[in-house]
Amino acid sequence: YKIALLPGDGIGPEIIPQAVRVLHAVGQRFDREFQCETALIGGAAYDATGHPLPEETLEVCRNSDAVLLGAVGGPKWDNLEPHLRPERGALLPLRKQLGLFANLRPVMVNYALADASPLKYDLVAGLDVLIIRELTGGLYFGEKRREDLPDGGQKVVETLEYTTQEVVRVVRLGFEMAQKRGKKLTSVDKANVLESSRLWREVVEELAQEYPDVELNHILVDNCAMQLVRNPKQFDVMVTENMFGDILTDLASQLSGSIGMLPSASLGGGVALYEPIHGSAPDIAGQNLANPLATILSVAMMLRITFNLEEEATAIERAVDGVLQQDYRTGDIMQPGKIRLGTVEMTDAV
Amino acid sequence: YKIALLPGDGIGPEIIPQAVRVLHAVGQRFDREFQCETALIGGAAYDATGHPLPEETLEVCRNSDAVLLGAVGGPKWDNLEPHLRPERGALLPLRKQLGLFANLRPVMVNYALADASPLKYDLVAGLDVLIIRELTGGLYFGEKRREDLPDGGQKVVETLEYTTQEVVRVVRLGFEMAQKRGKKLTSVDKANVLESSRLWREVVEELAQEYPDVELNHILVDNCAMQLVRNPKQFDVMVTENMFGDILTDLASQLSGSIGMLPSASLGGGVALYEPIHGSAPDIAGQNLANPLATILSVAMMLRITFNLEEEATAIERAVDGVLQQDYRTGDIMQPGKIRLGTVEMTDAV
Ligand SMILES: CC(C)[C@H](C(=O)O)[C@@H](O)C(=O)O
Ligand SMILES: CC(C)[C@H](C(=O)O)[C@@H](O)C(=O)O
Repeated sequence: YKIALLPGDGIGPEIIPQAVRVLHAVGQRFDREFQCETALIGGAAYDATGHPLPEETLEVCRNSDAVLLGAVGGPKWDNLEPHLRPERGALLPLRKQLGLFANLRPVMVNYALADASPLKYDLVAGLDVLIIRELTGGLYFGEKRREDLPDGGQKVVETLEYTTQEVVRVVRLGFEMAQKRGKKLTSVDKANVLESSRLWREVVEELAQEYPDVELNHILVDNCAMQLVRNPKQFDVMVTENMFGDILTDLASQLSGSIGMLPSASLGGGVALYEPIHGSAPDIAGQNLANPLATILSVAMMLRITFNLEEEATAIERAVDGVLQQDYRTGDIMQPGKIRLGTVEMTDAV
Repeated sequence: YKIALLPGDGIGPEIIPQAVRVLHAVGQRFDREFQCETALIGGAAYDATGHPLPEETLEVCRNSDAVLLGAVGGPKWDNLEPHLRPERGALLPLRKQLGLFANLRPVMVNYALADASPLKYDLVAGLDVLIIRELTGGLYFGEKRREDLPDGGQKVVETLEYTTQEVVRVVRLGFEMAQKRGKKLTSVDKANVLESSRLWREVVEELAQEYPDVELNHILVDNCAMQLVRNPKQFDVMVTENMFGDILTDLASQLSGSIGMLPSASLGGGVALYEPIHGSAPDIAGQNLANPLATILSVAMMLRITFNLEEEATAIERAVDGVLQQDYRTGDIMQPGKIRLGTVEMTDAV
């Protein structure tokens, strides 16, 4: 099992090594060998090579079965030209280059942590939703241009494009994931306004024929944002296009009240990428304060999805549940009466 | 004061007459004369004339100082061709034709109703945020086309356009509203990905020079969706483009837990339009169950913004506060121990 490690910036270089410790612990227990190779990305790569996504890093990723990413970005690189900034210059091209067309974000709320949610306890305790976001199409990758106008102002025109095939592959994944879970798929669009949403809805309707066991719903994106706040447990698997997914996945993750717990996977034809959904948190970097659990749970997703190691994945998830039940907490999820641990000590506990 | 009334569909024809009763009560008390003319819109207009937005309705609006709209749409008209459906065929063209480029949605949470929010009480009780949404630009009104592809599939291309001038006018309104309120403006964009957002941000930065007394913040739309759930009280006035505004205003309104209370205004160069933010609620139509308060509060906004009748507007808002304090509730905001009233009786109380 070959894994590319991209620690990146901020707390990235702290949490990735901790996740690797867990990986090797699993390897020992289950007699698996994981080979890891580390490469540069983000601000760290820019500082070292002048570019946030060096060709060499892409090579390391392509030669691996899976990529484990920490986080990129920080104030130090915020004023670079857009194409050199960690987010625009590394994340988006990495997704495109590796063909990662589907971003999977499970939002699960552990009963032990549900109190930390801004929502009322009953609305979120035990929540288990999977949001699938299309990741390589739409406004993100459309043509963009600026024109000067006679009135002295400017006009920006940018395009939102989707093809049938781009919609099919991500929606199919949605149906397949729904089959493996609660057999409910909610497709999110803005079909009352957007033509791309109408194409999207047509594709969903057609694919639905192949998955008669999955209960399908369509919901408009504005209503979806409301329903996620009102009653998130009504959802099982959700699938949507890139920009709507950007907004809705972040919204949904906030419902948990503990973003430091949430993993993610980005899938495509080849190598897959796994990362915590939180950012690089430069304010707490280098102080052994970061919560390593989201990265550790990302490793569990990797074992399950890319390597088909269900038992190994479950072992990690159980271990994380266990430390929470034993009242261990990092600072971000600390509650009165619990035991506060640092990044390394939390990993020791897992 | 000339007002066009567009009751529309569902509960629209129930709530508009109630708001008009309040309007006339205010007229009597403050010695003002309000002239109202009613016109058809939405499914009701389609049924009567074959089009959801008859030219005559536009004329009535143009000949008025303000428009009071109920709600449009319902299952009966959902399967019409898009351009004949109440939402696409009436709401969007009405906005465009009347040049209503700014949609104002105050989200206020009365202490008496804060318990109904899905969020914890302290996060929302007393909330007072104003979201301004650009309403006649962006993806909503861009070109849309479909192409057949050689692989048998299709491709949709749609465009998102904004000009400097379109951004200037709505952002300026944001600064002006912020000056009149808490002097804090948050501009929401996706400047790390969209070129239109970069133009947006440039305009905001430039206008900020003219409003040195307003504290300005930029926030990315994904982060904004998170912050609205995490800590909505951090915001005062927010301004954003059309599609982001569609999603964020609905999200924000849900925070209140009582959508039946929220008014809105849509402003442009000429006549302005006022409406409750809730929909036509066909399931409860015709049963004297609808909450008239959002429409009544929309009348207050009209008096204040279009007619500059501050005292009259405040009188209505105080009356609404009063009925809530006297424990009167319609079904949608009913709580144990309160007194349940119908649409007409609630208006009597106001
Ligand atoms: C950093 C940014 C370009 C990125 C996105 O919008 O996709 C981020 O918000 C995310 O969701 O991964
Ligand atoms: C009905 C629909 C076209 C409309 C919109 O998206 O603008 C509605 O959601 C709104 O917010 O007024």
